[in-house]
Amino acid sequence: MEQRIKIGIAGYGNLGKGVEAAIGYNPDMELVAVFSRRDPESIALPTPGVESVHISEVEKYRDKIDVMILCGGSATDLPVQGPLLARIFNTVDSFDTHAKIPEYFTEMDGSSKRGSKISLISVGWDPGLFSVNRLMMEAILPGGSTYTFWGKGVSQGHSDAVRRVPGVKDAVQYTIPIEKALNRVRGGENPDLSPGERHLRHCYVVIEEGADKEEIERKIKTMPNYFADYDTEVTFISQEDLRFNHSGMPHGGRVIRSGVTGQDTDRHNQTVEFSLDLKSNPEFTGSVLTAYARAAYRLNKDGQTGARTVFDVPPGLLSMKSAAELRKTLL
Amino acid sequence: MEQRIKIGIAGYGNLGKGVEAAIGYNPDMELVAVFSRRDPESIALPTPGVESVHISEVEKYRDKIDVMILCGGSATDLPVQGPLLARIFNTVDSFDTHAKIPEYFTEMDGSSKRGSKISLISVGWDPGLFSVNRLMMEAILPGGSTYTFWGKGVSQGHSDAVRRVPGVKDAVQYTIPIEKALNRVRGGENPDLSPGERHLRHCYVVIEEGADKEEIERKIKTMPNYFADYDTEVTFISQEDLRFNHSGMPHGGRVIRSGVTGQDTDRHNQTVEFSLDLKSNPEFTGSVLTAYARAAYRLNKDGQTGARTVFDVPPGLLSMKSAAELRKTLL
Repeated sequence: MEQRIKIGIAGYGNLGKGVEAAIGYNPDMELVAVFSRRDPESIALPTPGVESVHISEVEKYRDKIDVMILCGGSATDLPVQGPLLARIFNTVDSFDTHAKIPEYFTEMDGSSKRGSKISLISVGWDPGLFSVNRLMMEAILPGGSTYTFWGKGVSQGHSDAVRRVPGVKDAVQYTIPIEKALNRVRGGENPDLSPGERHLRHCYVVIEEGADKEEIERKIKTMPNYFADYDTEVTFISQEDLRFNHSGMPHGGRVIRSGVTGQDTDRHNQTVEFSLDLKSNPEFTGSVLTAYARAAYRLNKDGQTGARTVFDVPPGLLSMKSAAELRKTLL
Repeated sequence: MEQRIKIGIAGYGNLGKGVEAAIGYNPDMELVAVFSRRDPESIALPTPGVESVHISEVEKYRDKIDVMILCGGSATDLPVQGPLLARIFNTVDSFDTHAKIPEYFTEMDGSSKRGSKISLISVGWDPGLFSVNRLMMEAILPGGSTYTFWGKGVSQGHSDAVRRVPGVKDAVQYTIPIEKALNRVRGGENPDLSPGERHLRHCYVVIEEGADKEEIERKIKTMPNYFADYDTEVTFISQEDLRFNHSGMPHGGRVIRSGVTGQDTDRHNQTVEFSLDLKSNPEFTGSVLTAYARAAYRLNKDGQTGARTVFDVPPGLLSMKSAAELRKTLL
């Protein structure tokens, strides 16, 4: 086998652990080191031979790592770390603050070009695989509408919002697609549907002793942006029940485009659907980042530099197989 | 608006008509001419201003057409026409004789390079969109299995086979996925399933007067390759019923990958699914070819030549939108 692709992970939370596990399924890659702001001694890595390094030492790994997978958060980590690391390494990240993507792209593009590297931004499933599907479906069926449904799955942002309500000790929030809305879309009706008409929200809540359940439920259900525009169900449970039955990180969702083809006089409905049913959101997202790390490595080896998104990556670059093998076995 | 992309269609059957209709949904393209072996006068084109031209005159259009979409059949048309036309034009085709793809690729690659053109081969939904999904799913979830289910839809090859049975006047064959097999795959069981364990076949048959129904049914059900390995149902109907209820060309299907992620000690199931529900198979396939024609045009404008497949095409090249607009609106 050729030299393996040397991977680094920057940020070692759930996503970083998901990437670490994913590398184990890709024999053409090896994990060299995990970088974190925490004390390296405090981090127990399941993969033998991998170094745990303080992020301040990262420049020393300039020639030891082919692609750095950035596993920090989009709110505060990536806007700072991304442009710094993109000067030193090829990078892949899952930046998902939608409104700031154009600005982040420009920043990363500048950094990567200065370092003669590639940075692949906003990789994952949404943004990421869902985006690729939205694009392809729209290009193939210009006469139609695209719908994104999320869930059933745990939303970290909404769970956090419930936890901030006074009297709430712990909580998990599930986003659930509304079956009736799904069926209207699949049936080719092209309905006009707000997020609240596509999803309902179910909160499992543990309260502090003596807290007022009715008041908590009212506060959750009327919370602007998060819950006010949705059908929201609140179920009070014990801490033990929460830990036992709601500690997983399942998620998923679907992109559906329904459109028409044919001449005015004889139109036909066409429906395309892409869906994910994930038992572990961070492990799946980590697996997507890992496949795209292979593409980033190859693009840069080919002499390309600057920022890219999933829209710029030929699918073949994601695979371990050669182009001829792909044509023979998967076309 | 910039100059529109000038399209030609070679072969004017159901697929050619599907492409013609698709171009009407893409304002950045215009259909210049349709080429056929038939008498040009005999072809009525619904689009105003489009020329109907005998295929022998095609070379005169060298500078008038940016991309020629090849709509002939894979058995006899494309192996001959493809390499001839690929020297003169950028081409897109739906070559689907699986075993001969590597050989066809080599032929087309040689021709396109001699003409300094791009040829995009085996575009459509299978091969095509299903292939892209098989590739991406496998690259992202190396630890898993991929399943392709076809239908419910009309298979032309199987309908033709039934029509060749003595005593059969007309027939339509539907390929139908077996729900139970689908659910086993979605449930993450990773079952070992032959095509006959994934699909059943339903034939609607019109017989010649006085023909022996029992004998015809036996002949169909025991036909090697086509039906012997499948659960096959045969329903005898009138010619009128066939014309009225079974003259459409619906099809579809799904690619499902079920795999695991995570460390040995704590694995999680992940399922990815891509599905199509098509009321008109040739119009949808034509829409895919049309979107990929845009990509072929752009690749060649970028200086690239030779044969390509869907695996080589960055998704962004399929869209009418600019890269910046795509990042802003679809990522």
